[in-house]
Amino acid sequence: MDLRNSNLLERIEHLGRISEDSGALTRRFATPALARAFASVEGWMQGAGMETRYDAIGNLIGRYEGAKADARSILMGSHLDTVPNAGKYDGALGVLLALAAVEGLHEQKKRFPFAVEVVAFCDEEGVRYQSTYLGSRALAGTFTVGDLNLLDSEGIRMADAILSAGGVPDMITSSALDPSQYLGYVEAHIEQGPVLENHNLAVGVVTGIVGQSRIRITFTGHASHAGTTPMNLRKDALCAAAEFVLEVERVGKSTPHLVATVGELRIPDGASNVVPAQVLLTLDLRHGDNAIRREMVARLFHNAEAISQQRGVSLDWESIQEPSAVKCSPAWTRLLSQAVRSHQRETLFLESGAGHDAVALSSILPVAMLFVRCQQGLSHHTDEYAAPQDIAIALKVLDDFLQLAAIQFETLS
Amino acid sequence: MDLRNSNLLERIEHLGRISEDSGALTRRFATPALARAFASVEGWMQGAGMETRYDAIGNLIGRYEGAKADARSILMGSHLDTVPNAGKYDGALGVLLALAAVEGLHEQKKRFPFAVEVVAFCDEEGVRYQSTYLGSRALAGTFTVGDLNLLDSEGIRMADAILSAGGVPDMITSSALDPSQYLGYVEAHIEQGPVLENHNLAVGVVTGIVGQSRIRITFTGHASHAGTTPMNLRKDALCAAAEFVLEVERVGKSTPHLVATVGELRIPDGASNVVPAQVLLTLDLRHGDNAIRREMVARLFHNAEAISQQRGVSLDWESIQEPSAVKCSPAWTRLLSQAVRSHQRETLFLESGAGHDAVALSSILPVAMLFVRCQQGLSHHTDEYAAPQDIAIALKVLDDFLQLAAIQFETLS
Repeated sequence: MDLRNSNLLERIEHLGRISEDSGALTRRFATPALARAFASVEGWMQGAGMETRYDAIGNLIGRYEGAKADARSILMGSHLDTVPNAGKYDGALGVLLALAAVEGLHEQKKRFPFAVEVVAFCDEEGVRYQSTYLGSRALAGTFTVGDLNLLDSEGIRMADAILSAGGVPDMITSSALDPSQYLGYVEAHIEQGPVLENHNLAVGVVTGIVGQSRIRITFTGHASHAGTTPMNLRKDALCAAAEFVLEVERVGKSTPHLVATVGELRIPDGASNVVPAQVLLTLDLRHGDNAIRREMVARLFHNAEAISQQRGVSLDWESIQEPSAVKCSPAWTRLLSQAVRSHQRETLFLESGAGHDAVALSSILPVAMLFVRCQQGLSHHTDEYAAPQDIAIALKVLDDFLQLAAIQFETLS
Repeated sequence: MDLRNSNLLERIEHLGRISEDSGALTRRFATPALARAFASVEGWMQGAGMETRYDAIGNLIGRYEGAKADARSILMGSHLDTVPNAGKYDGALGVLLALAAVEGLHEQKKRFPFAVEVVAFCDEEGVRYQSTYLGSRALAGTFTVGDLNLLDSEGIRMADAILSAGGVPDMITSSALDPSQYLGYVEAHIEQGPVLENHNLAVGVVTGIVGQSRIRITFTGHASHAGTTPMNLRKDALCAAAEFVLEVERVGKSTPHLVATVGELRIPDGASNVVPAQVLLTLDLRHGDNAIRREMVARLFHNAEAISQQRGVSLDWESIQEPSAVKCSPAWTRLLSQAVRSHQRETLFLESGAGHDAVALSSILPVAMLFVRCQQGLSHHTDEYAAPQDIAIALKVLDDFLQLAAIQFETLS
């Protein structure tokens, strides 16, 4: 087995122990724990012949030069921050795979017509400030300056947190990368879903990241006594909600590639002997095609209205968030799938149902993503797991991807 | 208007101001507030020519003698304890109507071949010790001695609470009433439901109190990411629960006189972007016929099992409580409906969907109940309201009921 693989597995364990808490893995933006993880990765980068630097918000970037100085770069990487009680693979695996790919070049003293830069983003999960992609948005030049005034749960301003972690808040917007110096961005990430496992495949090629509609819905009926109110005199908000939940499932199942979920549902002041007066629920709809997603949201709104009218309950429908779908670059995705072909019997193309740093970078660069199978689709959980043999295949795919990119350098630039 | 009516309305207001809290009406078992309410009622009883006493648990009983000393009694009344943030009519109205009926006899110096006893029960709601009908069960001789060791939310033993309120816990079981000395029990109470209002009737005659099945149900599926888990790979506990909620409604609507309610439903650790792993819900089923109720519980259990199996989620079904239906005495109910007939164009017979002290007394005496219309069926709420003209009709019905009972005394004894 390639020595790089055992190193990579050891590094996953090493990073998995660097946490704000003992006993669980939690590594939020601009914390000392994240700084320790960066320091480890920086050392490994330097060992792989890379020059390292931190940008103004605190992303770590290592550069492995191309055959000529000042060559344009392929950017590869992912994030090193985590959710609370996280798994070891989400984010870290993408950084370490990119690093191992460069290590391979360094060992063989191989130089390409492009440089390879490995980026470790400082905030993708958005846990500390409830604002996602802080790191990759800073790099892409789409960071929202107003976010610097956000407060974390302890009342610490983002600007102060960045300063105390060694960053320079005032420089964030002016230190975005220059897209003309980059060819594209490639990210490997665990799938965080069950599709690859279901197809018994180690890796898959991502065609895009779905758009999402997040909606808060309230059905309001009338509270009444469960013993004394005949069925025909009720305005039961829960029955309305139940009908809607099944409509959501039906629309989800009957629309290819749509996922539709009611994840939260509660009855304020519910009691076993009271007909529910009000139900609050959330709707999460995702699809790779924005038009289809919007059409299905409209259809479900229509359904919710019909249910409400028929039952004499009222409906409140509040759209919370509508991030658009992102397409991966067809050229880069083709290259990635070529690299997959020699290591796996089948090249599965799939959409990402979750957001990634590639979303932020897609605004300035062609992006491509490789998914790695994870056990039972489990993520954001201590039991998150990707098998060594799958990780080894992912590394070979990235190796080959860089080789293919070198061969096709003219068409990519 | 009969002076008794204005007195009665004033007394409702008076009792409505006697509370543990200021600003809300809360009068739990064995509290100083309840003692003050009892003291007021005792004074009114004495003013109506009644001899008063408290029994060992703290029920107040006033006796208006019959034509002969030691005559058997008709027992009338209801409870004076309330739920927290209660309405003024629940319980109190039944006590005050019975008292006003006796007042009418006293004013006219009328004596019947039977005595009339008015009882004000000290605990029907079961709020303080989570055990209902404490007062009427003590009177019926079905009080559970073990309950004396129950603790309230402040850690006070029931026995100590009874002692401090002037009762004699050790005497409760031996001081039950002697059924041979009583003809029957009659209770007036607000309907706590919308049926009389819906029929535009002031009062209705209760045929019985429904039996109830209370069940706790858990559907357990599998948590997964709402963005990355295709619809066909989900085990969504909420969709299973939603199907079940609609089954409950369907069975409720299609079975005459059945009420079926899911009043609580929650998703532990639910999040908008997570497919729900588990749903906990309550089922409350009530019907006047125990066999029909049990059959419908069995049908819904079968439905829940079918839903679970089809969806690959697991089912937990736990029966919490199964109080049986109680029938009112046909003879006494006939008498009561005869009394209604002269005061209302229609005599509506209805079942009580909520429990009452009559349930406890039905184990030793014939019972009958008169329901009084309440606005919008609202009860256990500060807006609980019964109209003066409806209360006046209820009083006339009780007056006539006692007259009819006197005429038919031979057949009733």
